[in-house]
Amino acid sequence: MKVVKTIAELKTIVNKAKENRHSIGLVPTMGYLHEGHLTLATVARNENDVVIMSIFVNPTQFGPNEDFESYPRDLERDVQLASTVGVDVIFAPSVEEMYPTDGGIYIRAGKQAEILCGATRPGHFDGVLQVVAKLFHLTEPNCAYFGQKDAQQVAIIQTMVRDYNFSLEIRTVPIVRELDGLAKSSRNVYLSEAERREAPAIFKALQIAHDEFLISRDAEKAIILARNYIEECTSGRIDYLQMLSYPDLRQVTEETKEVLIAAAVYIGKTRLIDNVIFSLKGALAHV
Amino acid sequence: MKVVKTIAELKTIVNKAKENRHSIGLVPTMGYLHEGHLTLATVARNENDVVIMSIFVNPTQFGPNEDFESYPRDLERDVQLASTVGVDVIFAPSVEEMYPTDGGIYIRAGKQAEILCGATRPGHFDGVLQVVAKLFHLTEPNCAYFGQKDAQQVAIIQTMVRDYNFSLEIRTVPIVRELDGLAKSSRNVYLSEAERREAPAIFKALQIAHDEFLISRDAEKAIILARNYIEECTSGRIDYLQMLSYPDLRQVTEETKEVLIAAAVYIGKTRLIDNVIFSLKGALAHV
Repeated sequence: MKVVKTIAELKTIVNKAKENRHSIGLVPTMGYLHEGHLTLATVARNENDVVIMSIFVNPTQFGPNEDFESYPRDLERDVQLASTVGVDVIFAPSVEEMYPTDGGIYIRAGKQAEILCGATRPGHFDGVLQVVAKLFHLTEPNCAYFGQKDAQQVAIIQTMVRDYNFSLEIRTVPIVRELDGLAKSSRNVYLSEAERREAPAIFKALQIAHDEFLISRDAEKAIILARNYIEECTSGRIDYLQMLSYPDLRQVTEETKEVLIAAAVYIGKTRLIDNVIFSLKGALAHV
Repeated sequence: MKVVKTIAELKTIVNKAKENRHSIGLVPTMGYLHEGHLTLATVARNENDVVIMSIFVNPTQFGPNEDFESYPRDLERDVQLASTVGVDVIFAPSVEEMYPTDGGIYIRAGKQAEILCGATRPGHFDGVLQVVAKLFHLTEPNCAYFGQKDAQQVAIIQTMVRDYNFSLEIRTVPIVRELDGLAKSSRNVYLSEAERREAPAIFKALQIAHDEFLISRDAEKAIILARNYIEECTSGRIDYLQMLSYPDLRQVTEETKEVLIAAAVYIGKTRLIDNVIFSLKGALAHV
């Protein structure tokens, strides 16, 4: 496995892969790898000749009061972990390497970024699109791998890829869950024993909304049932619990083909997010 | 020569070229080809295995009161002309083919777009970047060819390519001039005989500013001399005449490496643009 820190070194590897007609899989991360990242890399490994993992804590997606400086970093540990799942190249540039110039051209993520997690993080998804566009151009991947856990992020990136004709495929890797349904997260360790027992109610609530919507096609009723379930079964506070079209993130209508139900819930002081995405065409067959 | 109207057909050609390791040159146009476009295509022909010319009147770069509907179109004539200079593929999509969806993600051109020609065309360069980014992704060119005549457009596109790490080179093809120095333009035919005699003063003024700046390094004085020359030698009205760093389009400082002097002048009712770009490092050698 190679660890490269400059664009020049990365480009040499990418150009050689292209010359050899090797397919490239990109796994963009901010490092401090956990099981989710390794799952993405494993899927990328299965589907590509060359797997590039980027490790870059991107300053432009942090707000002025957010934790860019204190965001955890441990490149040595990340390199060790990435090597266990067959990553070929780690691209770990400095901020200066990624942003040596600023000509004032920015990508604006638009309405999709104003809701869900974006409501409390203005500019966050603009920064995500900026770094993702740069990484796509730098690594010229055939496929790029993202976790479905960050459903809004994936939706916005998919919209950019679609509307700007990027020549690559976005692969969304399903949420990995504990046996009781709780979505795996680095933050689950913050939960007390009692909170940990409550936390699976989030996924259960998403399932309730899903089942209700498939029967009644009443999005409002489905969301109310799910909210009630969380409020009755947990001590948690709901940040959001919404049903939207996917990947557009607009109101569900009769034309909607893919549906996202997404939730963010504070269990104690820990904010947990989870979601389900399903196709209405496929789903109708089950009704 | 092939004329394709769908992205699917274009992608088949691009993918085949990539498989054969053929280099691709892209010449983006809005059609109604003139000598300038054909010069771009000729340069692209010399430097690439496959030359793709796009012909697309892009609605998103026209303001609400501009001439999108009445912009001249003649695909049959364009196809004929392009074939004379060795273009391999014409990509002439419909608006629906280029913009089937709108997820609300936009590129904003920033400060570079607020001056010169952008001052009177808000949003114009945003639309240019949108269509150019799409065309770059669709055709995956090694080089893309633009005329220096539209210096601000090239500067903004170069900034996007640089800051977003597009994997291609922008080639700027010099301005083609009449024997008396007037920049060639489709609009020169609108000039009366008397106006036509005045028009070369624009290029002469740019040269005066260039020469003065190389001697005195006094941008303000250089611009005043050039303005005076146009005001004394023509009946024209200056829209702008400015010296800026290139491609950043900021004030010229001691760090500036490339300089743009750009002018837009109404001669009668006809708005003519022209510019000179020069390297201060190279230019110093002449002093």
